[in-house]
Amino acid sequence: MKPLHELTATEIVHAIAAGKTTCEAVTRACLDHIAARESQVEAWTFLDPDLALKQARAIDGRSSAGALHGVPVGIKDIIDTCDMPTEYGTPIHKGHRPRIDAAVVALTRRAGGVIMGKTVTTEFANFFPGKTRHPMDPQRTPGGSSSGSAAAVGDAMVPLAIGTQTTASTIRPASFCGCVGYRPTWGDIRCHGVMEASGSVDTVGLIARSVEDVALYRDVLAGVPHEPLPADAGTAPRIGFARTHLWAQCEPETRNLLEECARRLAKAGARVTDLSLPAEYERVEDAHRWITSFEFARNRAWEIDNHWERISEKLRNNRINDGLACSMEKYTASRAFAEHARLKMDDLFADYDVLLTPAVAGEAPLGLASTGNASFCAIWTTVHVPALTLPLFTGPHGLPVGAQLVARRGADRALFQVARWVQRAHARGLTRP
Amino acid sequence: MKPLHELTATEIVHAIAAGKTTCEAVTRACLDHIAARESQVEAWTFLDPDLALKQARAIDGRSSAGALHGVPVGIKDIIDTCDMPTEYGTPIHKGHRPRIDAAVVALTRRAGGVIMGKTVTTEFANFFPGKTRHPMDPQRTPGGSSSGSAAAVGDAMVPLAIGTQTTASTIRPASFCGCVGYRPTWGDIRCHGVMEASGSVDTVGLIARSVEDVALYRDVLAGVPHEPLPADAGTAPRIGFARTHLWAQCEPETRNLLEECARRLAKAGARVTDLSLPAEYERVEDAHRWITSFEFARNRAWEIDNHWERISEKLRNNRINDGLACSMEKYTASRAFAEHARLKMDDLFADYDVLLTPAVAGEAPLGLASTGNASFCAIWTTVHVPALTLPLFTGPHGLPVGAQLVARRGADRALFQVARWVQRAHARGLTRP
Repeated sequence: MKPLHELTATEIVHAIAAGKTTCEAVTRACLDHIAARESQVEAWTFLDPDLALKQARAIDGRSSAGALHGVPVGIKDIIDTCDMPTEYGTPIHKGHRPRIDAAVVALTRRAGGVIMGKTVTTEFANFFPGKTRHPMDPQRTPGGSSSGSAAAVGDAMVPLAIGTQTTASTIRPASFCGCVGYRPTWGDIRCHGVMEASGSVDTVGLIARSVEDVALYRDVLAGVPHEPLPADAGTAPRIGFARTHLWAQCEPETRNLLEECARRLAKAGARVTDLSLPAEYERVEDAHRWITSFEFARNRAWEIDNHWERISEKLRNNRINDGLACSMEKYTASRAFAEHARLKMDDLFADYDVLLTPAVAGEAPLGLASTGNASFCAIWTTVHVPALTLPLFTGPHGLPVGAQLVARRGADRALFQVARWVQRAHARGLTRP
Repeated sequence: MKPLHELTATEIVHAIAAGKTTCEAVTRACLDHIAARESQVEAWTFLDPDLALKQARAIDGRSSAGALHGVPVGIKDIIDTCDMPTEYGTPIHKGHRPRIDAAVVALTRRAGGVIMGKTVTTEFANFFPGKTRHPMDPQRTPGGSSSGSAAAVGDAMVPLAIGTQTTASTIRPASFCGCVGYRPTWGDIRCHGVMEASGSVDTVGLIARSVEDVALYRDVLAGVPHEPLPADAGTAPRIGFARTHLWAQCEPETRNLLEECARRLAKAGARVTDLSLPAEYERVEDAHRWITSFEFARNRAWEIDNHWERISEKLRNNRINDGLACSMEKYTASRAFAEHARLKMDDLFADYDVLLTPAVAGEAPLGLASTGNASFCAIWTTVHVPALTLPLFTGPHGLPVGAQLVARRGADRALFQVARWVQRAHARGLTRP
């Protein structure tokens, strides 16, 4: 067996069920790994080993096992926890202790998860970075805004973490940190107790080290019985290769890796065809900008009026000023256009099971002042489709680069299935070049 | 001039601007009226006169006036306030004090509103009633779930109050209490800091004593500059009279009042035509039931797991058990059907500026164990259209009965315009029968 802290959630659940280990042992292994690595990665904004172990022992004492029995989980620090601080990545809320758990946290505990601690977020899940560094290179960003969640899972500190996504905040850091990142169909998972950045596009996001784990945790957070994915990865899918108008923003190596991947998947039996999105989709990112800025600026009304000087200049001068300057008419028109793009996207999926598209420009960039280019997710986030990044590639510096798959709204389970097929076909291509 | 506590928000703003009164005087008048009436109405769950007066004096000292300068406002107790408890209508959260204001509360303060206190809500904005009684008959319900907000405005304790609506929770109590009630186009006003019942349909709602006030407060809460409605009520509108399949659930007197109103509006020049909704709209209420129950049960995961026995039996046995029993497939299908009904409704509005439709079955019913029939709002809430109830009618016991107008998604301002036209035409019909 692998070291306990390297097990996936699914493996932990099975190992505990088989009597091979305990929740306490797994939690301890994760805590030990965190203790060894945290000074370099700084993924956590709150971590209390005693509290985690106390939860673990209580779970070991439960008479019946939930779907996530014994699995340690990291929670992005814009999500409320009743027994840990929640500070939203800002000094304004230093020491804040919510009264109750967010819905997703309560559902995690119900299923037997251990709330390991709170992971670093950028300021209000926006631009301004937290302290976290890339697990494989401390000179590089882990991506944002779910920086700590991705770094913690990528570094094997925990097998699962919750993030959120308003633009690229799950897919981008998961891609940089070599994780499987998943943003669900908008609306499928309840956000009560999650700080709202922009309700029109916000979702909870999941970060894991396997597609099975993402499928498992999604059922837990949707509050429905877990139905494992079939062992068989199913028939070869119909894949649309959507380079999008942002293709030139991808680094040449990333373009090559994606082209090569598309060829390999076709060779393995997938029907891979190029999909050029209609030109109007080039305007979706602009609509996204006005929707998210308008909503963010209103949601932060209390902080703007009471703590303006403690908000970073970067956030004030961009998102907030954009939002305050945006008229109701512009906001409404942007929402109407987003809905139009959403409905049209449903139709585009008639011929495809998934689209293959860049997740990021390339490897995590050097420097900690920015969390990287978010544009590659803006269309998909705005049109509410489920998206998943798979750690298929290695970039020129030996760092991970994700490949993004997106599916039709509501086709999350089908997306998981295809993702496994893609992962296997890609791996076979690697071993038999 | 009317007594200060009877002024509308618009009148207060003008009177203060003209130097005829002060925010402190208005607040004091409202507090005096509350002191005289609260033992009978019980609209408030938290009211601290000193805190209200302190806010009022601070507003009188401001050098520039916001759009709501000097107006006392009631806040439904599922909406966070940084200086008052927020208890969500449940003993589980007794004494809870949020750290910050909800977006709508902060925006109210920014515009110069006085947060007068917290108004009674049913348990978690759901079935189980609070203590509030109808201002005109203590044997009757004020309606729910925004019970205290409607009773307080109806009784002239405050000119404005915020409620919310997930089914009928603004329109119904406003109708019973003789107020103007307004539920905005879904998504227009941010819900950060408002307890989520069911995010797919939840909105903030406004309760006032004039259409102008609703238009004013809507701009404030949307965070945009207030543009007053034109003095002129505009041209005669195209009105669809939508009795709906629930017509038989209306009391005979209500049916007569609505029929008579439709005739009167036609006489005044409106193009009034009958609109039979397509039969599939009869299924919207069922979709609404599954969507709201599924989401409510997940949002309350923490309370369900930690305080099950302190949740009312009524709520456990209906909404929560429905929600826990609902599968992901049923939930997803219900959401898809709701979206279909929503898009089709846009098309139905091609020939109408507004629809005239029942708000309630009739007057507020006797008894305090139920808050009345909510069905008349379920379709409109689910399809996200803006809705407004006008206190046009008096029922057989001398109590108010509202008439509901609904408009196309995004046509909120047009709805206000038509509402004023309807109000004037109806009043003219009364004086010249």
